[in-house]
Amino acid sequence: MVKPLKIALAGLGTVGAGVIRLLEANAALVTARAGRPLQIVSVSARDRNRDRGVDISAYGWVDDMTLLAEDDAVDVVVELVGGSDGPALALARNTVARGKSLVTANKAMIAHHGMELATAAEASGSALKFEAAVAGGVPVVKGLREGTAANEIEHIYGVLNGTANYILSTMEESGADFATTLSDAQRLGYAEADPTFDVEGVDAAHKLAILASIAFGAKTDFDAVVCEGIARVRAADIAQADALGYVIRLIGTADAEVNNDGARALLQEVKPCLVPKGHPLSHVTGATNAVVAEGNFSGRLLFQGAGAGDGPTASAVVADLIDIARGEAGPAFSVATSELTALPPAEVGHRVGQTYLRFTVTDRPGVLAEITAAMRDAEVSIESLIQQGRANHGGEVLVAMVTHHGPESAVAKAVDLLKDSDSLTTAPLVMKILES
Amino acid sequence: MVKPLKIALAGLGTVGAGVIRLLEANAALVTARAGRPLQIVSVSARDRNRDRGVDISAYGWVDDMTLLAEDDAVDVVVELVGGSDGPALALARNTVARGKSLVTANKAMIAHHGMELATAAEASGSALKFEAAVAGGVPVVKGLREGTAANEIEHIYGVLNGTANYILSTMEESGADFATTLSDAQRLGYAEADPTFDVEGVDAAHKLAILASIAFGAKTDFDAVVCEGIARVRAADIAQADALGYVIRLIGTADAEVNNDGARALLQEVKPCLVPKGHPLSHVTGATNAVVAEGNFSGRLLFQGAGAGDGPTASAVVADLIDIARGEAGPAFSVATSELTALPPAEVGHRVGQTYLRFTVTDRPGVLAEITAAMRDAEVSIESLIQQGRANHGGEVLVAMVTHHGPESAVAKAVDLLKDSDSLTTAPLVMKILES
Repeated sequence: MVKPLKIALAGLGTVGAGVIRLLEANAALVTARAGRPLQIVSVSARDRNRDRGVDISAYGWVDDMTLLAEDDAVDVVVELVGGSDGPALALARNTVARGKSLVTANKAMIAHHGMELATAAEASGSALKFEAAVAGGVPVVKGLREGTAANEIEHIYGVLNGTANYILSTMEESGADFATTLSDAQRLGYAEADPTFDVEGVDAAHKLAILASIAFGAKTDFDAVVCEGIARVRAADIAQADALGYVIRLIGTADAEVNNDGARALLQEVKPCLVPKGHPLSHVTGATNAVVAEGNFSGRLLFQGAGAGDGPTASAVVADLIDIARGEAGPAFSVATSELTALPPAEVGHRVGQTYLRFTVTDRPGVLAEITAAMRDAEVSIESLIQQGRANHGGEVLVAMVTHHGPESAVAKAVDLLKDSDSLTTAPLVMKILES
Repeated sequence: MVKPLKIALAGLGTVGAGVIRLLEANAALVTARAGRPLQIVSVSARDRNRDRGVDISAYGWVDDMTLLAEDDAVDVVVELVGGSDGPALALARNTVARGKSLVTANKAMIAHHGMELATAAEASGSALKFEAAVAGGVPVVKGLREGTAANEIEHIYGVLNGTANYILSTMEESGADFATTLSDAQRLGYAEADPTFDVEGVDAAHKLAILASIAFGAKTDFDAVVCEGIARVRAADIAQADALGYVIRLIGTADAEVNNDGARALLQEVKPCLVPKGHPLSHVTGATNAVVAEGNFSGRLLFQGAGAGDGPTASAVVADLIDIARGEAGPAFSVATSELTALPPAEVGHRVGQTYLRFTVTDRPGVLAEITAAMRDAEVSIESLIQQGRANHGGEVLVAMVTHHGPESAVAKAVDLLKDSDSLTTAPLVMKILES
């Protein structure tokens, strides 16, 4: 008889209950694939008596979750509590320090403390796994760690937040504005009561920092992610993008670059971007997540699926448990932490590409001349420009343009030249255009 | 100093040369990720002196490739010779019998002899890996074996042949017919001089049989794959499908079903199908491969990328080598071969769905009445029907229809009722419509 893998489960929210349901429903095949049974021995949550739709009476109950790691019978702790610090981090530290493996869906904790936890796990010979922390049920951590392991990754980017993508693709479909769409999404359960982390890009930034670390062999550096949300994207921008052959998506991008001093550097950005129709990410609608990894031998690979939800997240958590049961859990970030490099943030100055700019301006003579003069003075070459009158925009005039391929620094300079202009009623919206 | 993983490489065609190029170009990162160097020690091919654009002088040369496995210094044999039997199979058998690991891109060999080789590898404690055999550089074997390991797979299907997909998506774009598009594809290097395996669906069937085995824990049963190629798809079918909101793709599908006797059974089909626009597979154009796996907890996952080519295939081969170097290579088909079940082929009778039928008929009164009467007598309910006159089709009349959701057996009965009709100038083309 093979020894079961004994699991302590912290957090019995929807994902925790999903893990219990999955291990019951798929017990036979999970055992066959893992080579041995996966057995929950103890659980911990805030309230023992809440009805979660699953029976927890067979498991030991522990009030203080940090103690889950102290039971000699436990092989693996599954942390589904959330929060970058606090009890989740205390439990995680306690787990890996004792040589037990840790499986977590906690993107904030891994983005902030992944290096510390991975180093401690290596030192104690335990595994640290977090497939569920990135893109929910989509096995993109394994995809990078194993599938693309032979490649130098040239670019990695994707749609990493289901709420933001739901809002943008719903705006696209309905023509409604951001505020209306957000409140509809909240009513339908696609957005939280406090949507800040999702619409401001922070959640996507957590995931991006983790992906970047694996893809580029870099130490996780969440604070270096340049983050811009979708709240300033208007229905008019989406309509304008559509007319030009693009959709707007909140894209997380990580690239290895070289700074002016010749040092390798890491670009990490989460920003709304224009995506050419026909690009794989232009087809990603609703709460779906998708990640594109471009390797120097593999070419462009796409991993796509449900970015959240109890079922998909439980699927990712249990996949990690199966890896551990199989003894197939190597370094968390693909290479030993001692091999990970601390890369400085990339300088933005030398990047080139096409850019979309949208200005809201007062309706008076000379405004267009002022904007186009700033473009000329900054040496930004304009491919197309559309001015839409007040009739459609509540008294505002919108000027949208797409630049030719050129340095982003020139665009930044043009925007800077206009920063004190009293013709502009709001700060310009600047969005990068993805290459097809 | 860690011990390198010592590799013998059989076959120095484009993929073999690609593996050598990759191991040179990405040596540092492959070593870091694998935890030790991957070192080619010997090679074998038909002609030692052919210029392959890579320097093989540092490797030992072996004339008889089956002897590569007999060198005690070798840990892993990489088989890139091809062919389901013959020297490739002799080498594979020799390798796993001696307890050495085997990495192969040979889909025909795995589809035909995968069970035997996996059983022998388990017995001798070696690894058998074939990521490159399915969908080129797309890590879908790992995706199923590890990413979706927690799920009961409900459906698996995909675009598994780049040549067929290139032809269909080019016909879609150009409006040209099959024969013209095929010969253009041959001229451009997208199709082989003998395109049979690709356009008749045999290559896709090899891949499908491997995926089905992993997804459903079934013994590989290539002979049970029902296979139909794309040669009968006309430009008019593509235009018709387009007007109805579909594209045509050659789809490999595997499903676990239950036969009338209550026994679990395996459906395996490679057939041209109508794919609703908006479905992830409708966006797969050119020589791309894509696989959709629908799990009972993960929901729908998509894996997409280059289905062939030296770079992508080498990427998959070396990913397998890294797994082996890491000691992370468990059972080839996800579970031990003793756990794989021999599933009978699924009966087709009880499946339901929508179907596209296209008849070519003589232009005379009563033909349409004859066809629609057959549909009525077989209890097939018609959702839409279009008849296109001779003007566009060189004297033939085309009748295309889409059925309502209903049993496929009724459609088969209708076609059977018409089989002796002298109104039909060719056998009807029947294509399943995928659900969105």
